[in-house]
Amino acid sequence: MLPPHDRSGGAPLDARTGLPVVAMIGGGQLARMTHQAAIALGQSLRVLATDPGESAALVAADVRLGDHRDLAALREVADGATVLTFDHEHVPTEHLAALEADGVRVAPDPAALVHAQDKLVLRHALARAGEPQPAWAEVTTDTGIADFAGATGWPIVLKPPRGGYDGRGVFVVDDLPEALALLAEHGRLLAEERVPMVRELAVQVARSPFGQVAVWPVVETVQRDGINTEVLAPAPGLDDATATAAQELAIRIAQRLGVVGLLAVELFQTADGVVVNELAMRPHNSGHWTIEGARTSQFEQHLRAVLDYPLGSTAMTAPVVVMANVLGGDAATEDWMGPSLDERLHHLMAHWPDVKLHWYGKGQRRGRKLGHVTALGDDLDEVRARAVAAARYLADGVVDAAFAFPEEH
Amino acid sequence: MLPPHDRSGGAPLDARTGLPVVAMIGGGQLARMTHQAAIALGQSLRVLATDPGESAALVAADVRLGDHRDLAALREVADGATVLTFDHEHVPTEHLAALEADGVRVAPDPAALVHAQDKLVLRHALARAGEPQPAWAEVTTDTGIADFAGATGWPIVLKPPRGGYDGRGVFVVDDLPEALALLAEHGRLLAEERVPMVRELAVQVARSPFGQVAVWPVVETVQRDGINTEVLAPAPGLDDATATAAQELAIRIAQRLGVVGLLAVELFQTADGVVVNELAMRPHNSGHWTIEGARTSQFEQHLRAVLDYPLGSTAMTAPVVVMANVLGGDAATEDWMGPSLDERLHHLMAHWPDVKLHWYGKGQRRGRKLGHVTALGDDLDEVRARAVAAARYLADGVVDAAFAFPEEH
Repeated sequence: MLPPHDRSGGAPLDARTGLPVVAMIGGGQLARMTHQAAIALGQSLRVLATDPGESAALVAADVRLGDHRDLAALREVADGATVLTFDHEHVPTEHLAALEADGVRVAPDPAALVHAQDKLVLRHALARAGEPQPAWAEVTTDTGIADFAGATGWPIVLKPPRGGYDGRGVFVVDDLPEALALLAEHGRLLAEERVPMVRELAVQVARSPFGQVAVWPVVETVQRDGINTEVLAPAPGLDDATATAAQELAIRIAQRLGVVGLLAVELFQTADGVVVNELAMRPHNSGHWTIEGARTSQFEQHLRAVLDYPLGSTAMTAPVVVMANVLGGDAATEDWMGPSLDERLHHLMAHWPDVKLHWYGKGQRRGRKLGHVTALGDDLDEVRARAVAAARYLADGVVDAAFAFPEEH
Repeated sequence: MLPPHDRSGGAPLDARTGLPVVAMIGGGQLARMTHQAAIALGQSLRVLATDPGESAALVAADVRLGDHRDLAALREVADGATVLTFDHEHVPTEHLAALEADGVRVAPDPAALVHAQDKLVLRHALARAGEPQPAWAEVTTDTGIADFAGATGWPIVLKPPRGGYDGRGVFVVDDLPEALALLAEHGRLLAEERVPMVRELAVQVARSPFGQVAVWPVVETVQRDGINTEVLAPAPGLDDATATAAQELAIRIAQRLGVVGLLAVELFQTADGVVVNELAMRPHNSGHWTIEGARTSQFEQHLRAVLDYPLGSTAMTAPVVVMANVLGGDAATEDWMGPSLDERLHHLMAHWPDVKLHWYGKGQRRGRKLGHVTALGDDLDEVRARAVAAARYLADGVVDAAFAFPEEH
């Protein structure tokens, strides 16, 4: 028999439940779905949201309102929490350092997180580690840009080091004047070659402070205007060698950077293999399929990892899983005259009784990620058609020709 | 294109999300897990709890504190809700009638719910419908009991018509003096023959106001001291004819009684088929396996049904699914010197990375349902051993001989 002791080494536990309290900075859909996972583990996610109408704030029991750039708000939400973690990458590094100095457990810690916050820091780190990435340069001068483009040819890709997501902050630039204008605006840029890619892939891996890692199958991510619209799991037709290499790459990065929690590695597949595009150190859109499609979801796994619990099985629950994002479309506009959201959900359920819905409760706006659907099965074409048609119906109220759909119900 | 209209026919929707608000009376684990399901549907469950430390109150965003026997509290929680439903059967029928008179949608309605509240009302209804049930009588006099026992032989089973659950309120009585003492205490009893049963089964069916029904596979429920400890899905070795008959029986009962929402039909299997033991009109312990084990969980399905959404697929996600309850055991006692709950969860995850945990966050007390675990796979013996060993370790901190388990981690 073990003597009674607190395995968390003095980190606070909830007095009522005897279990950890994870605090998450940010109240979006990632926090919303993490709260769902926390409920099963006997926990209740504490959320720092900026507005009571945010996705997670609508459903979590312990919501603190405040700004993630306000150190006082961060200190308040960290007080009594076992560990602090993130729904986004926007918390200033110096605030995280201050919290760590207070004795707060931050996962991932600021030294790791900066690689997901700053694209130049990531490029330098991957270069030191000898990991595959696009040709790149840190440019601060006109000649720096001209030299880089001279070596790779136009177009080139320019990225301000911080602040982008969902395709924002990525500029494909065709000529020098356009490039110089961007440089004048930002002062310092990451320049990258435009990778001749076959498609985009993603690998998700979880790592605990103890050093355990768990990786899910490599997936294909389909983008439209820089925003992820579909995730196909596993990546169709990916050869075993490339799949294993991509998983090993993700594990090496997690270990090298000391990631704690979830790491999503976004990859470009080229004729020669894969190169690293970007990282996220949190649950990520490319992992939503795991809620139904894997024995352990990315949200549960993130909680396990940041709490130093042993990680769960990443085995798939079906041969093929497809996640399709619902981006605000025609039905999200003010002058929409078609079926209401509630009616569209009704139709969705009637037509696809085995498609799983995840609706985030946000206000509807064109282009906004409002929810996602997941379909499972044996045949990629069938499963994908089902997921995409369901998502499209929710977004635009439009029925794909491939699916007969009654006008009335 | 359909004209814009509110398919819910004027019932309130949440102004922020445009989606329904389900209010559930009772803050136990059933409400907790229903909230989890509500999150995916874009909703947030409104809960009436009696204490802020209750299972659902710890995790839901919209918790009202009050007593389910207080009409004013019921009216307050119903205000602005699309529909009112239940985590337990203990709301007085006259209060539900008053709410309906106010215009509140109550699901199931009081005329249906009474069959789950009052065992004598159920017996009379099943008799009128000609459905199979044990030999029974409503007894109010000493001679009534003596005549019944004279016909069936001792022991007999005596039940006060209202208030029992988890084996409470069920008395197996060996002789007349004991029976008369019970009658003197309660005044009116349901007397039943002691059924010569092979085992206990359960069928869960959902029914919507529109009349759609969806039924899950028949399961075997294993009891210890009248409390469910394991659910085996599907019921091992059950012949197709009996399984179909049991499902059809459950559907007939749901239709006949006008159930809206989930109906759990607890059955005794005898040499001749099945007879009805009891009903529950809500998510039920016998359906917890559906969270991972079926495409649509009982909790999501209950929400769909009470909202008159189309019902989801009840297909199983694995050939064999076993749910094991964690009942407070040695580890729930004051003088427990073994690993803490947090440590036990840690060990559980290390040893069984594919067992799914559901912990309810309640205070630990011997015999109390504190959580459950679910295992999935192909081989009943293996899956069952895994689930039972995991549950036993959580309850008692004891490792089954069949599982090697390290003393230290």
